[in-house]
Amino acid sequence: MVRLAASDGLRLAASRTLDVTFGGGEANVAVSLSRFGIPTAFVSALPDNDLGEAARSFLRGNRVQLDGIVTTPGRIGIYFLEPGAAQRPSRVLYDRADSSFARAGASVFDWQRLLDGATWFHTTGITPALSAPAAEAALAAVRAARLAGATVSIDLNYRARLWDWGRSAADVMAEMVAEADVLIGNEEDADSVFGIRAAGSAVSDGHVEPAGYAAVADALASRFPLLRMVAFTQRGSISASENTWAGVLWTPDGFHVARTWRIAPIVDRVGAGDAFAAGLIAALIDSRAPQEALEFAVAAGCLKHSIRGDVNLVSREEVEALAGGGGSGRVER
Amino acid sequence: MVRLAASDGLRLAASRTLDVTFGGGEANVAVSLSRFGIPTAFVSALPDNDLGEAARSFLRGNRVQLDGIVTTPGRIGIYFLEPGAAQRPSRVLYDRADSSFARAGASVFDWQRLLDGATWFHTTGITPALSAPAAEAALAAVRAARLAGATVSIDLNYRARLWDWGRSAADVMAEMVAEADVLIGNEEDADSVFGIRAAGSAVSDGHVEPAGYAAVADALASRFPLLRMVAFTQRGSISASENTWAGVLWTPDGFHVARTWRIAPIVDRVGAGDAFAAGLIAALIDSRAPQEALEFAVAAGCLKHSIRGDVNLVSREEVEALAGGGGSGRVER
Amino acid sequence: MVRLAASDGLRLAASRTLDVTFGGGEANVAVSLSRFGIPTAFVSALPDNDLGEAARSFLRGNRVQLDGIVTTPGRIGIYFLEPGAAQRPSRVLYDRADSSFARAGASVFDWQRLLDGATWFHTTGITPALSAPAAEAALAAVRAARLAGATVSIDLNYRARLWDWGRSAADVMAEMVAEADVLIGNEEDADSVFGIRAAGSAVSDGHVEPAGYAAVADALASRFPLLRMVAFTQRGSISASENTWAGVLWTPDGFHVARTWRIAPIVDRVGAGDAFAAGLIAALIDSRAPQEALEFAVAAGCLKHSIRGDVNLVSREEVEALAGGGGSGRVER
Amino acid sequence: MVRLAASDGLRLAASRTLDVTFGGGEANVAVSLSRFGIPTAFVSALPDNDLGEAARSFLRGNRVQLDGIVTTPGRIGIYFLEPGAAQRPSRVLYDRADSSFARAGASVFDWQRLLDGATWFHTTGITPALSAPAAEAALAAVRAARLAGATVSIDLNYRARLWDWGRSAADVMAEMVAEADVLIGNEEDADSVFGIRAAGSAVSDGHVEPAGYAAVADALASRFPLLRMVAFTQRGSISASENTWAGVLWTPDGFHVARTWRIAPIVDRVGAGDAFAAGLIAALIDSRAPQEALEFAVAAGCLKHSIRGDVNLVSREEVEALAGGGGSGRVER
Amino acid sequence: MVRLAASDGLRLAASRTLDVTFGGGEANVAVSLSRFGIPTAFVSALPDNDLGEAARSFLRGNRVQLDGIVTTPGRIGIYFLEPGAAQRPSRVLYDRADSSFARAGASVFDWQRLLDGATWFHTTGITPALSAPAAEAALAAVRAARLAGATVSIDLNYRARLWDWGRSAADVMAEMVAEADVLIGNEEDADSVFGIRAAGSAVSDGHVEPAGYAAVADALASRFPLLRMVAFTQRGSISASENTWAGVLWTPDGFHVARTWRIAPIVDRVGAGDAFAAGLIAALIDSRAPQEALEFAVAAGCLKHSIRGDVNLVSREEVEALAGGGGSGRVER
Amino acid sequence: MVRLAASDGLRLAASRTLDVTFGGGEANVAVSLSRFGIPTAFVSALPDNDLGEAARSFLRGNRVQLDGIVTTPGRIGIYFLEPGAAQRPSRVLYDRADSSFARAGASVFDWQRLLDGATWFHTTGITPALSAPAAEAALAAVRAARLAGATVSIDLNYRARLWDWGRSAADVMAEMVAEADVLIGNEEDADSVFGIRAAGSAVSDGHVEPAGYAAVADALASRFPLLRMVAFTQRGSISASENTWAGVLWTPDGFHVARTWRIAPIVDRVGAGDAFAAGLIAALIDSRAPQEALEFAVAAGCLKHSIRGDVNLVSREEVEALAGGGGSGRVER
Repeated sequence: MVRLAASDGLRLAASRTLDVTFGGGEANVAVSLSRFGIPTAFVSALPDNDLGEAARSFLRGNRVQLDGIVTTPGRIGIYFLEPGAAQRPSRVLYDRADSSFARAGASVFDWQRLLDGATWFHTTGITPALSAPAAEAALAAVRAARLAGATVSIDLNYRARLWDWGRSAADVMAEMVAEADVLIGNEEDADSVFGIRAAGSAVSDGHVEPAGYAAVADALASRFPLLRMVAFTQRGSISASENTWAGVLWTPDGFHVARTWRIAPIVDRVGAGDAFAAGLIAALIDSRAPQEALEFAVAAGCLKHSIRGDVNLVSREEVEALAGGGGSGRVER
Repeated sequence: MVRLAASDGLRLAASRTLDVTFGGGEANVAVSLSRFGIPTAFVSALPDNDLGEAARSFLRGNRVQLDGIVTTPGRIGIYFLEPGAAQRPSRVLYDRADSSFARAGASVFDWQRLLDGATWFHTTGITPALSAPAAEAALAAVRAARLAGATVSIDLNYRARLWDWGRSAADVMAEMVAEADVLIGNEEDADSVFGIRAAGSAVSDGHVEPAGYAAVADALASRFPLLRMVAFTQRGSISASENTWAGVLWTPDGFHVARTWRIAPIVDRVGAGDAFAAGLIAALIDSRAPQEALEFAVAAGCLKHSIRGDVNLVSREEVEALAGGGGSGRVER
Repeated sequence: MVRLAASDGLRLAASRTLDVTFGGGEANVAVSLSRFGIPTAFVSALPDNDLGEAARSFLRGNRVQLDGIVTTPGRIGIYFLEPGAAQRPSRVLYDRADSSFARAGASVFDWQRLLDGATWFHTTGITPALSAPAAEAALAAVRAARLAGATVSIDLNYRARLWDWGRSAADVMAEMVAEADVLIGNEEDADSVFGIRAAGSAVSDGHVEPAGYAAVADALASRFPLLRMVAFTQRGSISASENTWAGVLWTPDGFHVARTWRIAPIVDRVGAGDAFAAGLIAALIDSRAPQEALEFAVAAGCLKHSIRGDVNLVSREEVEALAGGGGSGRVER
Repeated sequence: MVRLAASDGLRLAASRTLDVTFGGGEANVAVSLSRFGIPTAFVSALPDNDLGEAARSFLRGNRVQLDGIVTTPGRIGIYFLEPGAAQRPSRVLYDRADSSFARAGASVFDWQRLLDGATWFHTTGITPALSAPAAEAALAAVRAARLAGATVSIDLNYRARLWDWGRSAADVMAEMVAEADVLIGNEEDADSVFGIRAAGSAVSDGHVEPAGYAAVADALASRFPLLRMVAFTQRGSISASENTWAGVLWTPDGFHVARTWRIAPIVDRVGAGDAFAAGLIAALIDSRAPQEALEFAVAAGCLKHSIRGDVNLVSREEVEALAGGGGSGRVER
Repeated sequence: MVRLAASDGLRLAASRTLDVTFGGGEANVAVSLSRFGIPTAFVSALPDNDLGEAARSFLRGNRVQLDGIVTTPGRIGIYFLEPGAAQRPSRVLYDRADSSFARAGASVFDWQRLLDGATWFHTTGITPALSAPAAEAALAAVRAARLAGATVSIDLNYRARLWDWGRSAADVMAEMVAEADVLIGNEEDADSVFGIRAAGSAVSDGHVEPAGYAAVADALASRFPLLRMVAFTQRGSISASENTWAGVLWTPDGFHVARTWRIAPIVDRVGAGDAFAAGLIAALIDSRAPQEALEFAVAAGCLKHSIRGDVNLVSREEVEALAGGGGSGRVER
Repeated sequence: MVRLAASDGLRLAASRTLDVTFGGGEANVAVSLSRFGIPTAFVSALPDNDLGEAARSFLRGNRVQLDGIVTTPGRIGIYFLEPGAAQRPSRVLYDRADSSFARAGASVFDWQRLLDGATWFHTTGITPALSAPAAEAALAAVRAARLAGATVSIDLNYRARLWDWGRSAADVMAEMVAEADVLIGNEEDADSVFGIRAAGSAVSDGHVEPAGYAAVADALASRFPLLRMVAFTQRGSISASENTWAGVLWTPDGFHVARTWRIAPIVDRVGAGDAFAAGLIAALIDSRAPQEALEFAVAAGCLKHSIRGDVNLVSREEVEALAGGGGSGRVER
């Protein structure tokens, strides 16, 4: 997906230049994992034009393997970003209708071949939100991944403006999550998608109370018995420029809460959830203990806030330095 | 329509910033006429989002009257421009499918109200090329304009990549041109749309022979008896950076050939045909004699090549100065 | 007025590019009101050159009606802005001497025509600060507005560096405010212009104490009996990048204090007072209750701090969302 | 003087960023001479603000000695430049009224001290065009320079839009040139200022005929008997992007015509005359023979066309390489 | 190698921003071949820092295989580019001393592994010019390539400023060319390196006479009997902005001269020789006939002049379109 | 030294433009002192190329006297800066090996001449860190300065990544500091260089405890008996965007602690220590009392954080305004 972003402090409608980068939930996770040194392939559909080529080049430059990308008719999805500041929120204007990917159905992907040798499969709730064919493709993918023996992780990634093609997020995501081993969401997703909310409000007035998410995870694990891990990012929104950031991780053996970071100023918070997901996946592939894996994931997401663009251009060493107690920001020289 | 242009010398796929301007055949003519001091209204459909608002603001800032713009579902059309240089041609990547305007059919425009008091109506072959509803709306518009007593001008503006919705340009444009008083095209349009080509090749190898277009105009006037003026721009393409530029004008009383300009370097040739059309319309509204009107139109189009963006940001005085023999480019101070 | 601004973090004297926007007290209010959907006309004098045209185009694009702008000899006023950060304050370098507007006296404006049908007239203390003719014109305007039955609002907007043409701000503003229904100022204006200061310091060390302004408003209302509303913005200056922001509103029936916002980081605080004034006027035209009108005005001013440029490019909906309790800055998507 | 320039291909009124550089006839010559290794001092008046400081810093960075700059009230002069292209000429919008320099009269400069040790004094016709005090100061300066024994050179530099303060260029310049040893002008200046034109038109339709300038120089030398050298640049204007460029030099012993350069594309022609003047002065200080001095001057002016900004940022070696037959533009690596 | 380029029209010493791209003779050829669809691997040494990583990412994004890049101590080579215009030549400031690659000797590359399966090996005279270790590595490489059965092509690419480490270009290149099948050079290289010049000057005053190069190629083929193809680009330098461009190709069976292109304006001529080399190699791999291969190579080099940066971001289709007679630069839409 | 900086929020490896400025420890101090009105000369070695010239021009423009700069072989040192934000630290990539200055030994500088009339000599620990010749030159310089009767100040400025040429910082700096009157360092330097740390940790977890530095200064004064002043900046690192900033000053007569500033957001902290050093030197030259001198130095360093680039482009008046209690950042207009 092409991202066209206004400059800081300018309204989109008044912008005369836009910065071009590339992103999208799954692509962001793929790039992040590649940068952590984990061989990663990305599966999607792109049109045969300059913008499709630019997206391919971006991913390739970040070491993502692209054999799973098919070229199909349609356009490339675009989203326009107007970065917020202080009390003015960032705004996203989606222009994704009729993208090659939204048009492509389950039949264009040969999952048997694509999953050959794969040990982990990740997708998000944005894919089925795009269109009926995309939802069909997403469901086929998670089922194929399960059959292929890969660990399946799903980020709920609820986007209200996208779910307009017929079926509800609740129904579709339930079918998908039923196949998942690991479920990821932000502090609101479980409520938005499945109506599962902590007893007592866990989110209020920009403040998030991690403890409440243990019960949410329990409820999800009860409903989707294959789940063996549920993780939520915990964003406390003070303003568009200042947030707290943490995360929780539930396993059948316990509930873990990460250190909370105060992030100010936020350079770009888009993609922080994907950075968290990639951090968690990487740490789990590394067989880290739950608390350590969670801290790595939260630190990865924390760093993303300091980098313009959707993708988390950080190294494993940088994440570890932060997770290990850094963050004071002394110049490295 | 939003135009997103790469910087000079950069390929679109390698661009990390894009310049945002606004344009489109009819909009370009409207802005140009407004700048010449002629009260002009623009009729279109735009979505209710930031980009639609930006387009409105652009037109309003250029004094175009916007009461005829309706707000309808869909997206705003986009085109990506990669400017060429020397032997590398400029490339246009259209991303206009499903725009608010392409979706809007004849019924959304109340032409009786919109044309109240109008003395001239102009449209182009790009509108019916977009979609069946757009073609239906365009045809309804020219018929309503004729009924309302306005002079009707049509620029053939053939775009091969757009005509993909079912009917052929030949058929649709024939219905439209049948209602027109003034027909405008470039050196290839009459051939591309109606297969009417000068005996002996009028265009060869970057060189254009004006004399051949008298017969083309005659043939068009025979087929479309309401036509009382036919004008063609005459672009000789030496390279993407250097063109010759002239024009011819046929009336029942004679055939006029304008002075030829050599333009080097070309800053931006997109919109030159629209600048010519606006120049011609303005000159005819001013009741200039045919040769004088043609020279004004050609000079207007010539100046457009020196200005970045789709629209011809020049004053009537500047066009007159050039048409009157300027062009040596001495600094004005 | 043309605003030429250095980029963030650069000193003006070291800048090699400047950003061009347009602004000025009254123009900012006019644009803001237009964006709130209130038909607004702007009265001024501009030169007949490219910069004057650019200013017109900017206003027109923002839907401000321009029939009241006269074209007169002189230059367009310029101000250079060096944005501050942290402990370094923003600096304004005025270059407004001999502008068309500063030269134009009362006689160039036909107030009877200009005010025909007007229900509200707004001006600021910057206009009479520019020159004797401008002061004369400003006074003529408020008197004509009162005669025409329009509500008259005046923003004191004291600028020490501008009042250098002979008469004191105290004298001139007293004549103007004597005609006003609504008086607006910031936390220092009443003291700077009229020497009316709260018993006990209301402003100290970056902190503002709203309660002290009830007495200031009382004193002003006593001195200028036509006043039926007095409003002050309340800026607590922690640094150039972080302020608190609130407001108070006095009416004969009570004294209202708005919620205080902490704004960090400040993108651009120029024009926040104008955004407040426009918000107040719009809310009063909508017949909102005083507390609600004040909260709307304060929220409008708050959002302005997040937008580069003099004018408050926000919608009525955005202001209402903030006034209604938003501000946590979650991404809208 | 501050120069604020639009980007290539953009109209000034549509520009949202402007490039800041510094220039002005005499300053350009001073910088150029300094870069050629000749100790040079600049005499002017600047205001005590950030822009005055920026101008000082620019000159100082280019090794110009600034002890002769006085700080006086007023503003710094500004000019806005809209670069032309192809048939669209560059446009200069002067905003120089009431500059510190235009206000400063003869009395603020202590010429006896400033000229102590000086061997050459150069000024241009722009200085007296600014205002009566500036003209008075310019005349005092040339007289003092003559008394001090310095060679006096004057560039006519006629600017029609500036001469509006009362006296005519013809009268004022005659007084000044009467004191000069060396007179410089472009192909039109002698005609514009003194009405001295070659028998038969020397300039027609963008073409310049050098031979005609021998008689013009003769006429000037007759009228101003102190002159011992008269030089004219010879610009043939094909378009705003393409010029021919040459020069002629008259001495009592002969008339010299330089090689003609075809310059395409022109990056920035502002300051080419000053580059020529500096080249001529440097070559004469070096005691080069007339033909060689002229070729050096013409080559210096030629190179200026390839550099953005008013000043000719080239080295003596680069000018000599071109004058010696270069110009084919092979990459130096 | 990192390329840091000033903007058009600015001197390097006056630039405040530089554009970052990546390039270098062999890298440019590798990227070009990859874009033509030919699997290509690049062998070099890069440091383990952000700039080395950026170079890797650039190459990877362009589909170049990077297994042959070793990470060694040192810095990454830099070159600063000041683009010329009109009579002012482009200038290259090399800052390549002590680069990782210049320090790396033959022993760091395992050519047996790297050449496994390779059918073509290409290098240039820039590599051995850098340092003694680099020359040693280059020689080892061509010998290993010959042993491995790959076709060996060498571009002489003479850079006078680089050959300063001890041995002469003549000696070193003779050893290398002795192993080559295909030799490439520009119109001056054979003379500069081996002192082989056409009888009668083939290059004079910006004009190149292709016929003279048949004898040069004969002389080279006699001296280096393994050569079975010798190609020269033919650049006629009119100015920094305008060149003619052609090429010749000698084989034992005949001497071929390509069509000559006039290129104006030149956007960026750096890398044109590499684009020619890549075009020739691609065409020869495709088994095209000599004349056709030469025209493809010349067209590839021609298009490079229109693209900013070292590498030729064009597709095989674009080169073929130009070689097949295009070049008139009509907009593609 | 050339500084090439990525834009805010971008990783260096992903940057396509870099901002060029100039800096380096001693140069930063020299510029700052010049701006405070103190005649200052800079001694260094620069290459004879465009970048060396650019550095000279930068210093000259800031009024630094350059007679002490010698032109020697080599390159100019470069450093790449990636600005940090929030939890992501700024990173410096040094590319200074083999610079003209690092290669130049003691013999290229004629200290007797250079120090003639000098009253103060300042250098930093970065110079001897560069190379053995640089260390030798630095030691020669401080000894010459002492002989010449100048006050000698040294900023420890420890850079771990630079000290790689053989001798340890501890040894070399001990020889240098033995000659110094005034020693300056940051909160870690005394520990890093000499292993002198406050009893009880003075720096922990981003917090600095000033009291602990009295003992550190005592220890240094004991070891280096010529010292009559020891000053430390006190930076509390909360994040890359937010720091506290203060300073301490030890004299034989007492220990002074300055007011602590909270700086948020930090625009650019590079050079803050140099700004502090320059402020301290200027205040001592002005014979201010220790506490006042310290507050001036801390305020100078505080302002530096708000300005992009290495050098502290502030005036003496601005520093005094802040030291005198400002910092609330109200707009100056």
